[in-house]
Amino acid sequence: MNTQSTNEECLGWAARDESGHLSPYKFSRRALGCDDVSLKITHCGVCYGDVSCTRNKRGHAKYPVVPGHEIVGIVKEVGSNVHRFKIGDHVGVGTYVDSCRECEYCNDKLEVYCSKGITYTFNGIDVDGTVTKGGYSSHMIPDNYPLALAAPLLCAGITVYSPMMRHKMNQPGKSLGVIGLGGLGHMAVKFGKAFGLNVTVFSTSISKKEEALNLLGADRFAVSSDQQQMKALEKSMDFIIDTASGNHPFDPYVSMLKIAGILVLVGAPSELKLTPLNLIIGMRTISGSGVGGTKEIQEMLDFCATHKIYPEIETIPIQYINEALERLSKGDVKYRFVIDIENSLK
Amino acid sequence: MNTQSTNEECLGWAARDESGHLSPYKFSRRALGCDDVSLKITHCGVCYGDVSCTRNKRGHAKYPVVPGHEIVGIVKEVGSNVHRFKIGDHVGVGTYVDSCRECEYCNDKLEVYCSKGITYTFNGIDVDGTVTKGGYSSHMIPDNYPLALAAPLLCAGITVYSPMMRHKMNQPGKSLGVIGLGGLGHMAVKFGKAFGLNVTVFSTSISKKEEALNLLGADRFAVSSDQQQMKALEKSMDFIIDTASGNHPFDPYVSMLKIAGILVLVGAPSELKLTPLNLIIGMRTISGSGVGGTKEIQEMLDFCATHKIYPEIETIPIQYINEALERLSKGDVKYRFVIDIENSLK
Repeated sequence: MNTQSTNEECLGWAARDESGHLSPYKFSRRALGCDDVSLKITHCGVCYGDVSCTRNKRGHAKYPVVPGHEIVGIVKEVGSNVHRFKIGDHVGVGTYVDSCRECEYCNDKLEVYCSKGITYTFNGIDVDGTVTKGGYSSHMIPDNYPLALAAPLLCAGITVYSPMMRHKMNQPGKSLGVIGLGGLGHMAVKFGKAFGLNVTVFSTSISKKEEALNLLGADRFAVSSDQQQMKALEKSMDFIIDTASGNHPFDPYVSMLKIAGILVLVGAPSELKLTPLNLIIGMRTISGSGVGGTKEIQEMLDFCATHKIYPEIETIPIQYINEALERLSKGDVKYRFVIDIENSLK
Repeated sequence: MNTQSTNEECLGWAARDESGHLSPYKFSRRALGCDDVSLKITHCGVCYGDVSCTRNKRGHAKYPVVPGHEIVGIVKEVGSNVHRFKIGDHVGVGTYVDSCRECEYCNDKLEVYCSKGITYTFNGIDVDGTVTKGGYSSHMIPDNYPLALAAPLLCAGITVYSPMMRHKMNQPGKSLGVIGLGGLGHMAVKFGKAFGLNVTVFSTSISKKEEALNLLGADRFAVSSDQQQMKALEKSMDFIIDTASGNHPFDPYVSMLKIAGILVLVGAPSELKLTPLNLIIGMRTISGSGVGGTKEIQEMLDFCATHKIYPEIETIPIQYINEALERLSKGDVKYRFVIDIENSLK
């Protein structure tokens, strides 16, 4: 996954089939274009999207797949038109590496919603027709922010930060529920506390209670299977961020929203099912959201640096990746794996 | 349903059991309180909520049920504390007749979302513990607005007007889809055109096409079972108002929303089921809404008078009510029945 320009050989770890098993893989990247930036990757976060794609859960995998879309590193080369980045800058790459740059969404810096479709960082089709296996960069990471910790911000972080800002959750004193305590959920708790919110964590497992309260700083913890505890929270939340990717009932959470409350869906279970009256009588809203545009990614990076908000990570060598993906698919990670590419991929 | 104060005998039509069959019924109303207004009812609109309650579809009917919550009439008496209304004023009563008047929602004039719960206009529990069968009033109907036409505004009208204003649908040039063309749907089309929107009507039946375009002024009509027509409209709508009360698929409509588009749910099917990714990838929103507060009801009445927006109604005598309810339950009404109480209930 070390990004190389031109036709130099790159080394990465790839899945060859639906087993999703990763092993070393040599490949070439396309030549550096005049608008491109190439980087030496130092770290890469591990997202559930990596499991989903390498195991072909959505049926779109183009093997061999070199996953990874929470990439940080150091600029090595810049194209002739590039003025925002220079060699040596600390930069990051999130879930997408290109878009049309002309449509209304691109012009609004909401490139992720590009009318013509974005080019995904990996397993996407690049301008030259090849399948992407890395990317150029557009986010500047503040110098004083540790690179390893910046990685999870580029997917997990922005996926919760973007809807939190859009739905005005940065209002101190309001209440926030966070469903699920993985990579996305733990960042939602951290942003929530930074915004001055009263944060309740919902999890299927009591085992996460102590860390939720003491490490992450949540105000309250509820086990989602405890109906009495759930019932007691009815009509108590201004906002809920649902990061759970497994199927679960929605009505109990919608019932927890106050009048005009908003539930933001960022996890992607296979089905959403609820009682319409539960939305109607409370003027309640369910809103989807996916990652964020380049402008808000930069804003988030700066916000995290200023407020010293750091993801909780477990740093691993690339050789541990198959166990990490297996643990991740079972929800066994506190709270994001980050691969030390620089020191382990050789 | 003629509202009488004190212990005078009132005459109305009531359902006695789950057959929902209505027949004449004599009853008393509670005495006029110092904050109350009593009125002589001249007209009453017929809403699907009347069918639903008289036939006990939600299991809450308190028989005998005298339905009707789109009431208009003339003030006959006012309590000693009442200064906003005087005898002879044209007034209307919507779906609720009281609320706590103290909570944050009541203070915001969003009484319908009162923390302690509203008192429904009929089949609700009044301050004296009796079951409501009519109501006092708080909406002034402009003098030049025909009373019969004002009736449907008090439930059907406000139910679509309120979320249209909340979600800023009054932006000329934007696009609106309206699902279902009954009492609510036809008002959504009229408001949409008054706001300068490009309006597409979705209906299960081609039979409504001509009137949708020529009488109501919609710009486009689509039959919801025509998959090709539906598919062609993907990503084309800024807003959709879903007034359908029967179960129907949601994914095809959500797919029609542009990025950040909003579907407002005001009909109440028994289940909402969709693919979460369909919300997530488009930053799309589904939001519920129920009637509206007193302030916006007044605002809507004034808006309709100023812009000469009139519901399409079929005026009926009270003796026709059972056939009307039957026709309504089959969707056979253009577009709202209004009972001529003044001339037929004797």
